[in-house]
Amino acid sequence: MTTLLYEGKSKRMYETGDPFVLKVEYKDEVTAKNGSRHDFAPGKGRLNNLITSNIFERLEAAGIPSHFIETTGEATQIVRRVDMIPMEIVVRNLAAGDITNRLGFKKGEEFAPPLIEFFLKDDALHDPLINRAHAIHMKIATHDEIDELKKRANQINVALLDIMEPMGLKLADFKIEFGRDRKGNILLADEISPDTCRIWDAATGENFDKDVYREGTGSVVDAYQKFYEKMEEIK
Amino acid sequence: MTTLLYEGKSKRMYETGDPFVLKVEYKDEVTAKNGSRHDFAPGKGRLNNLITSNIFERLEAAGIPSHFIETTGEATQIVRRVDMIPMEIVVRNLAAGDITNRLGFKKGEEFAPPLIEFFLKDDALHDPLINRAHAIHMKIATHDEIDELKKRANQINVALLDIMEPMGLKLADFKIEFGRDRKGNILLADEISPDTCRIWDAATGENFDKDVYREGTGSVVDAYQKFYEKMEEIK
Ligand SMILES: Nc1ncnc2c1ncn2[C@@H]1O[C@H](COP(=O)(O)OP(=O)(O)OP(=O)(O)O)[C@@H](O)[C@H]1O
Ligand SMILES: Nc1ncnc2c1ncn2[C@@H]1O[C@H](COP(=O)(O)OP(=O)(O)OP(=O)(O)O)[C@@H](O)[C@H]1O
Ligand SMILES: [Mg+2]
Ligand SMILES: [Mg+2]
Repeated sequence: MTTLLYEGKSKRMYETGDPFVLKVEYKDEVTAKNGSRHDFAPGKGRLNNLITSNIFERLEAAGIPSHFIETTGEATQIVRRVDMIPMEIVVRNLAAGDITNRLGFKKGEEFAPPLIEFFLKDDALHDPLINRAHAIHMKIATHDEIDELKKRANQINVALLDIMEPMGLKLADFKIEFGRDRKGNILLADEISPDTCRIWDAATGENFDKDVYREGTGSVVDAYQKFYEKMEEIK
Repeated sequence: MTTLLYEGKSKRMYETGDPFVLKVEYKDEVTAKNGSRHDFAPGKGRLNNLITSNIFERLEAAGIPSHFIETTGEATQIVRRVDMIPMEIVVRNLAAGDITNRLGFKKGEEFAPPLIEFFLKDDALHDPLINRAHAIHMKIATHDEIDELKKRANQINVALLDIMEPMGLKLADFKIEFGRDRKGNILLADEISPDTCRIWDAATGENFDKDVYREGTGSVVDAYQKFYEKMEEIK
C-alpha cells in the first residue's frame, strides 16, 4: 500500500503504512540545468540507492544521524519522513562548477576552512544564494539552528573525506538537505551520491560524479559503478 | 595641483597635495543598470555633494566616523583617502528593488531586524551577493571586521532613521562602502545620498531617490532638491 507523495527529478517518494516512514525509489534518469537536460540512465537508480545507503550507514557509525532506515530493494530504501528545511547546503573543499563563474574562483582552488553556502530551494527563483539573515527572516531556520546546520555540514564533510581519502579520491564539493522530525530534531535527509557530490580521482583527476553528464565526457552509469566498486573495496 | 585618480559613474576622485586626502567631485550625471542607461542631470552633483556632506556631519555627531573632512565647493568635498573594502553593504528596512525579484519578497515587506547583505564590488561578475565565509576566503575582511562592519551598518541605519523620521520619510534601504585608513581603522567612505538610498514619503509613498530615474517617474534633480530642502528644515 504505497501512495506516490512526490516525484522529483531523481527520486519518487511514497507513503507507507507508517505515517512517519517514506519509501524512496531512485529513478534511472539523469538531469542537468534544473531539468532542461534529461536522459535515461539504466542502472543509475540502483547505484545511487546503494551508494546513498552505504554513505548514510557510515555517517550513522560516525555519529551523524540521518533519515535513513534501511535498503529495501535494488533501487529502494525506507527513510524517516521529515519536514524538509527548504535549503540546499553546499560544502566546498575545492572550487568547481558554478562558483567559478559566480565569484571567479579558479577550478581546484582550495577552501580552508571548507566554504559553506546556503541556497534557497525555490525552482521559480532558480535556487538563489542566501545568507543567515535571509534564512531567519524567511523563518526557514533560527539562528541556533543555522549554527547547528553548519556544524553538521562540517561533520559530514569530515566523515565523507574519511571515506573518500582511502578510495584515492578528492571530494571537491557536495550538496545536502536537512529536515525536522516530528519532535523538531534536525536530521540529514535526501541523498548523498555522485549526483550531489563532485568527486575527483586524486591521481588522474578523473570524475566520478554528475559532471560526467554535465560535461558530456563519458557514461554516468559507468562512472557511478566505478565509484561504487571503490567504495565496496574499502572497509 | 590636483591629479585625477579615478573617474566613476557619479564621482571623480582627485589627489591633493596631501597624500592622505582626496578631493571628490560629484558629477551631473545619472546612471542605471550598471551604467548601461546614462543621462545628464544638471544640478545633481551639487545636491549629492551637499546631501552627503550634511549626512556625514550628522553621522559624525552621532559618533560614527567617516572619511568626510569638509565641503570645499558646490560640488566638491575633501575626504580622508582610504583603501576601499571591495564590498557594497546593503541595509534593508523594507523590501524594494532587486530583492523583490531575487528572493520574492513583497515590495514594502518589513525586515525586523533590518536585513544586511554584502555584495562583492566586481563589475565583471555583476556585484554578486556573498556571505561571511566568501569575504573571509577572499581576504576582503576578517571575521571580526565583518562583525564590526555589521555593527557600523546597524548604527548608521539607526542614525539615518533618526534623520529621516522627522522629515516624514521612510528609509527603505541604503548602500554603504567602507575603507581602511593607513592605521587600519575602518571608516565609512564613498557617499550616502538619494543615489544610494531608497527614501519614501511616509504619507504619500512619493520617492526621493534614484528610483525616480530607474522607473522614469519624474525628474531626479527635482526629487533630490525636495529631499535636500526637507533635510535643511530639520535641526
Ligand atoms: N526524509 C524525507 N522526508 C520528506 N521529504 C524528503 C525526505 N528526503 C528527501 N525528501 C524530499 O523528497 C524529494 C526527493 O526528490 P528529488 O530529489 O528527485 O527532488 P528534486 O527533483 O531534486 O526536486 P526538489 O528537491 O527541488 O523538490 C525532494 O523534494 C526532497 O527534498
Ligand atoms: N575615501 C575614499 N578613498 C578612496 N577611494 C574612495 C573613497 N571614497 C570612495 N572611494 C571610491 O571612489 C570611487 C567613487 O566613484 P563612483 O562612486 O563614481 O564610482 P562607481 O561608478 O560607483 O564605480 P565603483 O564604485 O564601482 O568603482 C569608488 O570606486 C569608491 O569606492
Ligand atoms: Mg533532489
Ligand atoms: Mg559608486
